[in-house]
Amino acid sequence: MSEMVPRSHPRYASLKTREKVVEGVEKGITGPNGLIAQGRGEALDYFIGEKTTSPGMDAERAAAAMLLLAERPVLSVNGNVAALVPQEMVDLARSIGAPLEVNIFYRTEERVQEIVNLLRSLGGETIFGEDPDSFIPGLDHARAKANHGGIYDADVVLVPLEDGDRCEALVKMGKKVITVDLNPLSRTAKTATITIVDNVVRAMPKLIELIEEMKSLSQEELAAITERYDNVDVLRRSVREMIQHLEGQFSEM
Amino acid sequence: MSEMVPRSHPRYASLKTREKVVEGVEKGITGPNGLIAQGRGEALDYFIGEKTTSPGMDAERAAAAMLLLAERPVLSVNGNVAALVPQEMVDLARSIGAPLEVNIFYRTEERVQEIVNLLRSLGGETIFGEDPDSFIPGLDHARAKANHGGIYDADVVLVPLEDGDRCEALVKMGKKVITVDLNPLSRTAKTATITIVDNVVRAMPKLIELIEEMKSLSQEELAAITERYDNVDVLRRSVREMIQHLEGQFSEM
Repeated sequence: MSEMVPRSHPRYASLKTREKVVEGVEKGITGPNGLIAQGRGEALDYFIGEKTTSPGMDAERAAAAMLLLAERPVLSVNGNVAALVPQEMVDLARSIGAPLEVNIFYRTEERVQEIVNLLRSLGGETIFGEDPDSFIPGLDHARAKANHGGIYDADVVLVPLEDGDRCEALVKMGKKVITVDLNPLSRTAKTATITIVDNVVRAMPKLIELIEEMKSLSQEELAAITERYDNVDVLRRSVREMIQHLEGQFSEM
Repeated sequence: MSEMVPRSHPRYASLKTREKVVEGVEKGITGPNGLIAQGRGEALDYFIGEKTTSPGMDAERAAAAMLLLAERPVLSVNGNVAALVPQEMVDLARSIGAPLEVNIFYRTEERVQEIVNLLRSLGGETIFGEDPDSFIPGLDHARAKANHGGIYDADVVLVPLEDGDRCEALVKMGKKVITVDLNPLSRTAKTATITIVDNVVRAMPKLIELIEEMKSLSQEELAAITERYDNVDVLRRSVREMIQHLEGQFSEM
């Protein structure tokens, strides 16, 4: 597709993103259901105008503060995250000294191995997921697998593109959960501590940039940002963005 | 999935529909890109409340009238249509005496053959697509393939889940084009003569039912329905439905 779609194409960014997920499936790091998830994301991204919105930016800022304040942050990587932003996950992990942990919805050992290999080839250091030694309570066996030193013990987990059940189970364990989800009305969005309603391909570079910027802030300044943050308000504003986008398109018709 | 998802599950219908597309890919009748299209459809259907809306119903009624008035109607079948509503396409073809024509976005002869075989096994009679003998002007070679006696000569074409380029090319040939598209803002939606903004799994049974009901109407009565029909108004009302659905969800938050 990269040879077929010119950069000037109005849907260039969206088509390049799609291409990455299709390649992910071909390489065996993304499951076929990841294509359906990508399609949902495309439609939802269209509704926020395919740009980072003001509530998205506020959530990204709060997420950066929360990751900088965390004692045991962990970054979770699934098949779509591995296809779309593997380098960004490795870079963020290095920036904050966090381990990565591979967790995929339809677990196969081959796919976990492929993702671990990919992250390692991009410079990933501590990567959990191949040999889980613990279980997240309240999830079925395959989905519950986790690691001590990784997600199981984490105080803050970044789990982009997560499903509702697992997000809820992590919150119930007392963890602070940061997710990236383009649907502000999803169960994941409503359950997480911080929901970044943005495309993961825009959110991850922004998050890395913000963390670099905010490293110089004091603990008090960072804490003030997370304490001020209101996730329900951010979700409401994100829905409002979608309504405004539709109204704009509507009045053009 | 059918064994895992109970009928009482709030997302049962959506998950069953998804399962059909995944099976379509496994059987070789749907391409991997069909999964992305299905995901987009899931998100969009969510925004109209996963039900047939009032503008959707008006478009279905006008489409039924247009198909009954047509001299050479043809029903186009692609990979997702073959996965989701193959029996309905065969039934509708029989009901109005129209041929079916297989046309898929990423054409492979194997996939065309699989879809033709499927339609035939379900009772399809005249099925074009295996041996195209003509080209729709303005499309690249593989996508342009069509048949005399089929789409090439049709006065009315039903092309559910069609892309913008092909829809536009058919309209430029002077045909009346009826499409089913959950995105009222898509190029296909804006280009078609009648755009049914509804899930194809709900739209096709409704269309068959309406055609049975409306067969007793006179030509004049049918013509009055199509003449009264305003596609831009229907699209505007569909966007309004989405906005209202979001506002409803918003106020619950």
